[in-house]
This record gives sequence, C-alpha cells and structure tokens, in this order.
Amino acid sequence: MIRVLYPLRTYLIVSGGKKETNVMTADWVTIISRNPFIICVSIAPTRYTHKLIRKYEEFVISVPSMEMLKDVWIAGTESGPGKISRMKISFTPSKTVETPSISEALANLECKVIEAKDYGDHTLFVANVTNVTYKSDAFKGDRPNLRYKFIAHLALNEFTTFEEKVYTP
Amino acid sequence: MIRVLYPLRTYLIVSGGKKETNVMTADWVTIISRNPFIICVSIAPTRYTHKLIRKYEEFVISVPSMEMLKDVWIAGTESGPGKISRMKISFTPSKTVETPSISEALANLECKVIEAKDYGDHTLFVANVTNVTYKSDAFKGDRPNLRYKFIAHLALNEFTTFEEKVYTP
Repeated sequence: MIRVLYPLRTYLIVSGGKKETNVMTADWVTIISRNPFIICVSIAPTRYTHKLIRKYEEFVISVPSMEMLKDVWIAGTESGPGKISRMKISFTPSKTVETPSISEALANLECKVIEAKDYGDHTLFVANVTNVTYKSDAFKGDRPNLRYKFIAHLALNEFTTFEEKVYTP
Repeated sequence: MIRVLYPLRTYLIVSGGKKETNVMTADWVTIISRNPFIICVSIAPTRYTHKLIRKYEEFVISVPSMEMLKDVWIAGTESGPGKISRMKISFTPSKTVETPSISEALANLECKVIEAKDYGDHTLFVANVTNVTYKSDAFKGDRPNLRYKFIAHLALNEFTTFEEKVYTP
C-alpha cells in the first residue's frame, strides 16, 4: 500500500556523461539536509540509470512542468538511452558535474553521490547538491510559482498538478 | 535553494508511546522500497520527535487532509507534547507499534526504524512500514482520491492542494 503516500512529485533523473546520457522518471526523491543541501533518491538496481550513477557517481535531478508530461512518460516507461531520441528535450552542460542538465526543465540540481545503500528492492543514493539552476520566475521569492504546473504522480499513467490557490492556516 | 524541489507533500510524524506522545510536521519523507515497504524521513536533531524516535525506535506517519491544516501548522511550529492539547486530533492505538495513530488522518503508516544516520543538519531515519491503515474511500482502486484534499507545502505558512483533474500522457 505504498499509494497512501501519494500523490508524490515526479522528477527526471539524468545520469551518465556527455557520451552516454540517460533520463528516467523518479517519484522517490526527497531532501535530507538544508545546509549543506543533501538529497536522496531511490532507484531499482534493474534500471540503466542505476548503472550510470554507479559509474559516474553523479547525476542531475530535473524538475519537469506539465508541458513535459509526454517526456516524463517516455522516460518512465522505456529503458536505456535510445528513448532520448523520442523525447523533446535538449541537454545543456552542467556546472559542477559531467552529467548534463535539461534545458526545458524548471530547475536542475547537480548531485554528487556521497553514499549508496541497498534497502529492499531499491538502492538509496544520498547526494550533495553542488549546484542548482532554475527559471527564476518559477521560484520567485524563494517559493514555487504555481502558474508553472509542477507534476505529481497519482498511479501508473495518471498525473496531476496543484491548485493555484494558496492556503494559510 | 531547497525550494526548487517544492511543493512537497506534508505529513504528520507521531512519535513516542501512550504516555509521551508527540506530533510534528515533516515534508522530507519518501518511499525507498516497494516490497518490503520501506520509507525514510529526515528530522533535525533539535526536534523533540528526534529524541522520541531514538528512544522508541518506532513512529507513525499520518497523512493529513486540508481540513487538518491548523493542526499541521501547530505541529510544525510548536515544540513538545504540550501542543497536543491545542490540536483537534484524537489518537487511536496502532496495531504493530506502541506509537498511536491519528484517527482523523487519511492514512497511518506504522514504522519501525532499521537505520538512523546523520547527514548535514538532519538525521535520516529509514524504517520498515509494518502496518498501514487508511480511509478506503481516500485511496479507492489503489490510487489517491483527489476529492480528499491532500496537503502540499509551498513555503513557511503557505500550503496548497491538488487539482481534481487527472492528466494522462
């Protein structure tokens, strides 16, 4: 019954370097520490991304908007770098890692692995975020701008986004 | 710039036992493994909840709806079990852990700690989910029912919820 924690945000994980780049979709991402900025992502050992992260010890978390939903779907359901040619994304060099960032994404977090540990059917990668780039209007005033439709995953091929309404207690 | 990963879902973390129960708010929660069901939550060592999880080695993740927003705010901004009396929640016994569940929550995940490790300014608690209870209508067909307003955190005292619309790629 993992679904009781859903909807969860959906992100893209870019792995590899300039010559072998892969992109997958991941819901199981969160923040561990604010200062220094440390995150974790859980990835199944069967994924091609898993091999590339093991090899390069770095990756990029890209934040897609609803406009990229078809790309999110391809990244999440097809295996290996061949899918890149069927996606409408373009890569741009990252600043602190060899893994490229995604130009169309709302944000890109450059990550360097500090620990990898297997739990159950997945590997938890813990990583320092060494650089962040983002579309400034999408995170104006240090808060997400809900006019940009951030994606959340419901189940299988069902996704949703947020109301633009802000609730205060 | 941790905000580039927001909005993130907001959950309640119940800690302690029947005699000393505390509740805090946490955004930094995710799934690590599906089978077995393993999750992680990141909690600052300054939090009272941190001490109680260390002591009991168990906790409960409760899923609040927007109707509980004031309780979420109290749980997130006040320290120590004294705040419970100012919240409109009631506890119900859990099945596999001494830490109680929250009756009003959409779901309660009973968790037993399998590892605790410090990263930066927080401790990452990895835990087996040993039992899950939930309001069946809120997760009908193994997917969240968006008529139940699941809470996501934007920044400080700003929260939002999801559109009821489902997007398919």
